[in-house]
Amino acid sequence: MELIYVLDILGTFAFAISGALVASDQKFDLFGVIIIAFVTAVGGGMLRDILIDAHPINWIGDMNYLYVILIAVISTFLFKSKILPLYKTLFLFDTVGISVFTLLGLQKGLTFNLHPVVAIIMGMISAVFGGVIRDVLTNKIPLIFEKEIYASACLLGGISYLLLNHFGVPKDFNFIISASVIVIVRLISVKFKLQLPKIKDDIFGKT
Amino acid sequence: MELIYVLDILGTFAFAISGALVASDQKFDLFGVIIIAFVTAVGGGMLRDILIDAHPINWIGDMNYLYVILIAVISTFLFKSKILPLYKTLFLFDTVGISVFTLLGLQKGLTFNLHPVVAIIMGMISAVFGGVIRDVLTNKIPLIFEKEIYASACLLGGISYLLLNHFGVPKDFNFIISASVIVIVRLISVKFKLQLPKIKDDIFGKT
Amino acid sequence: MELIYVLDILGTFAFAISGALVASDQKFDLFGVIIIAFVTAVGGGMLRDILIDAHPINWIGDMNYLYVILIAVISTFLFKSKILPLYKTLFLFDTVGISVFTLLGLQKGLTFNLHPVVAIIMGMISAVFGGVIRDVLTNKIPLIFEKEIYASACLLGGISYLLLNHFGVPKDFNFIISASVIVIVRLISVKFKLQLPKIKDDIFGKT
Repeated sequence: MELIYVLDILGTFAFAISGALVASDQKFDLFGVIIIAFVTAVGGGMLRDILIDAHPINWIGDMNYLYVILIAVISTFLFKSKILPLYKTLFLFDTVGISVFTLLGLQKGLTFNLHPVVAIIMGMISAVFGGVIRDVLTNKIPLIFEKEIYASACLLGGISYLLLNHFGVPKDFNFIISASVIVIVRLISVKFKLQLPKIKDDIFGKT
Repeated sequence: MELIYVLDILGTFAFAISGALVASDQKFDLFGVIIIAFVTAVGGGMLRDILIDAHPINWIGDMNYLYVILIAVISTFLFKSKILPLYKTLFLFDTVGISVFTLLGLQKGLTFNLHPVVAIIMGMISAVFGGVIRDVLTNKIPLIFEKEIYASACLLGGISYLLLNHFGVPKDFNFIISASVIVIVRLISVKFKLQLPKIKDDIFGKT
Repeated sequence: MELIYVLDILGTFAFAISGALVASDQKFDLFGVIIIAFVTAVGGGMLRDILIDAHPINWIGDMNYLYVILIAVISTFLFKSKILPLYKTLFLFDTVGISVFTLLGLQKGLTFNLHPVVAIIMGMISAVFGGVIRDVLTNKIPLIFEKEIYASACLLGGISYLLLNHFGVPKDFNFIISASVIVIVRLISVKFKLQLPKIKDDIFGKT
């Protein structure tokens, strides 16, 4: 569906902007900024494709990803002071990107005849690991390991897609519903600061 | 051989527990703990399979790895205070896991017609790189680069396997002997705190 | 061409030495030093081959890389105090290595029918990412993201190669010219301390 491709590109753009902003705060030079924007935007899908042996991998098979990332980096270079106040818009794009990345990754997993659980994992890797690689390359502990950001949302959206798919809901319609699940769960969890539990205490008391 | 598969699963369980413990000390949330347990347990084999183009890679081709890791994480969540005192048992499982991972990786390399030296490297990657990826993701210098833990043991066990294989010792019997070599070398090196040399001085004196 | 292979091996040797020196400064043990020398020397080409699905990957398909790396590590162990004063020679080897890695990576990309832009990226990955993986494994922010070292030189050399190739210049001759471009641009940028811009200010002023 055309719309999904447009949303995919929009999400890639938002991820690339967020990567470029992180890299520029680290005083990286232009080359460093491009690399960080690049891995943030396509790192998750790239890892997914390597794991399931899907060649050519995402950004090699479709040059539009590279062009969008380059436009995002140039925009950040020229208009950083104007972009920062737009963080709400960016957050929305970002959330849309996450939902689209998750479901496209899941669908790709199913196309490759993976076990449904593995397909959900592929969806989550697509959405999450761009940020993980960005954090590793900038020498930080990946944010997503410490703090709920969107892993649960991706998981619930993935389960929703598999369930509806099982009951014969048409793919495109299913995509829109399950993407909405991801967007809504994320907005709710950010609004109410919901967090996943940590292993501090166990059922026997403090460790 | 059935026994080897059981030992492989046992080793995976021990690696996942150790990963979950490390992640919980870092105050990671549930998602972060699962990821770290996962990469610690199957990261080495995953890297090996990507390097030698063996698809489906380990945890995609056999769902049992995922199930065992999930059980390990849940156990750590529920019983952390009871698991910590079992460190000697865990150390034993861990050592068994290392020996099995090394030899299974080596055997897989031979099956893929790799040069024997490369096959040994594949065995070592299988055993060692789960921990390396864990350390990179938790933003630490990989422990194994600084301190002898088990790299030498894996190397000696791998050489033992290739030698015995060369002289026609049956595979299963060879597996048990060479696995024992790894376990014994590791126990000895831990007991006597043996370490590999460092490059501080060279043959001309202090650098 | 025989000469290019010799230069490739020479570059691998220089990269391995530089990796071994970095690792020995971190007080890594012998195993850690070998791993760091290894990823510094062949990490870029390895990543390239995984991304474009070129199996067997570089060091698995040609054992000479492993032998050269081992010789480099042993040399560093034995003669570290004698190697350090040779930094100018090493810098020269290193620069030759970068130019050869870039162009071999680019050529491999073209052989795999990649888009010319992707082929240039493959050349740059070959030259740059060994150092990036080294820095990640030693828990540092990759130097090349912060400071111009040789990314621009690789890019210009890659563009030179594609242009001359387009105009029918014979491959071997083109290789030598474009490699010279990389070497010269790097020497100039080091000599005059040229740097890529950073995102501190944008066209609207300070951010």
